[in-house]
Amino acid sequence: MSWNSRLRIVLVRPRNPLNIGAAARAMLNFGFGELWLVDPYSEAFRTAKSAMGAAEVLANARVTKDPAEAYGDCSLVVATSALTGRNTEIVRKEAPAAAAALRTHLEDRKAALVFGSEKFGLSREDLSFCDWIFTIPTAPECPSMNLGQAVAVCCYEIARRSAPVAALKTPASASAEDRDRIFGILMPILRESGFLFEGSEEAQGRKIRRWVTRLRLAPKDALLLQGMLRQIQWKLDHTKGPGTGD
Amino acid sequence: MSWNSRLRIVLVRPRNPLNIGAAARAMLNFGFGELWLVDPYSEAFRTAKSAMGAAEVLANARVTKDPAEAYGDCSLVVATSALTGRNTEIVRKEAPAAAAALRTHLEDRKAALVFGSEKFGLSREDLSFCDWIFTIPTAPECPSMNLGQAVAVCCYEIARRSAPVAALKTPASASAEDRDRIFGILMPILRESGFLFEGSEEAQGRKIRRWVTRLRLAPKDALLLQGMLRQIQWKLDHTKGPGTGD
Repeated sequence: MSWNSRLRIVLVRPRNPLNIGAAARAMLNFGFGELWLVDPYSEAFRTAKSAMGAAEVLANARVTKDPAEAYGDCSLVVATSALTGRNTEIVRKEAPAAAAALRTHLEDRKAALVFGSEKFGLSREDLSFCDWIFTIPTAPECPSMNLGQAVAVCCYEIARRSAPVAALKTPASASAEDRDRIFGILMPILRESGFLFEGSEEAQGRKIRRWVTRLRLAPKDALLLQGMLRQIQWKLDHTKGPGTGD
Repeated sequence: MSWNSRLRIVLVRPRNPLNIGAAARAMLNFGFGELWLVDPYSEAFRTAKSAMGAAEVLANARVTKDPAEAYGDCSLVVATSALTGRNTEIVRKEAPAAAAALRTHLEDRKAALVFGSEKFGLSREDLSFCDWIFTIPTAPECPSMNLGQAVAVCCYEIARRSAPVAALKTPASASAEDRDRIFGILMPILRESGFLFEGSEEAQGRKIRRWVTRLRLAPKDALLLQGMLRQIQWKLDHTKGPGTGD
């Protein structure tokens, strides 16, 4: 498996078939093949598939409603965003350094590079899945790039490094799947245990997901955490209501 | 005048209004403002102008039938092309080195970066105006980039260098206007003097233009050459036919 087959491009809620086609074309131009679409406007994807030249990438593209599925076994999930972002919680790395970091990771591990919709970019919810933000330095007067062009610039920057920059490798970390599993076990526990306030569960969910992402658990530590949480859930299930405990 | 205002983007025979709009948007993203269109499909430009977001760049865009006018006072004219080009006469520089060379030139001189039509790229005639070719390294299986995306990648690469790479500057050279003037004086002389074979004047014209381009004349040497050629032409005009000489 070559390094470039370890990169997954993920388009979240793309609206314009031309942009989907353009993204696929840029991927082919720079030797990347794996495209995922999260919750695309269905008409958009159908049109893109029938009309575009980059048939190979589009034919193999995967569609899902669930971002966690799209990030799957990737152990690094990188968002893209214009310089002037609203979210300041997440580390931003600017191209070309961002591309160098990704390239180093791809040497032996999988990564996803995530692009938001043309109109709204990535939501706070989307960003909660992501380790850091890949930023293309643009002019302050016109910071927001066209989707297809942003994909092209990122793919170019990652591909032009034929070998990874010599750098201390970050230690192996849990995949997005593992993280999502942890999130999925943790939330009911927190709900049940009264940690979540009623009414603002969505915002709290984001906060929790971000927290899980930030942990950057080693794979075996992720397993351990899952084990602990499952046990806690079991306990909660078996101590419901007064008088059911032992 | 800042360095980025010295770059002129020239689209030769663009066909698709979306691509013209996308090119303008990418220019704005990276702080470039001067767009020229050589012989665009007129419908395409009208549609682009009315539909696109990058209104400022498009409103100020200049249109001409004459490539020499578009390159005007630029003393460096750089073509763009996929790696697998047919033309081997011209030096190719690969990004990012190509961008560094351009950026150095822009420090105190003007340059044009030229993109061919979506379908046919740049012709041999187009290339005869150009000093060298800016190449984006792409995958051999899919070397040809979408026009808007190619503009984005080039603009990104040029803009991300906030300061020019320390390099020996090439000496000042004649502008494209000067070169075109020389070409314009030289051709009739060559025709009249029997240097050009009948029937293949177009191909010979290209060859001559390439030659003028390759000279990379210093400005004062260009003036000198023009003076010499004008004198030769005068002489030819006054010695026509047998018996008219003195």
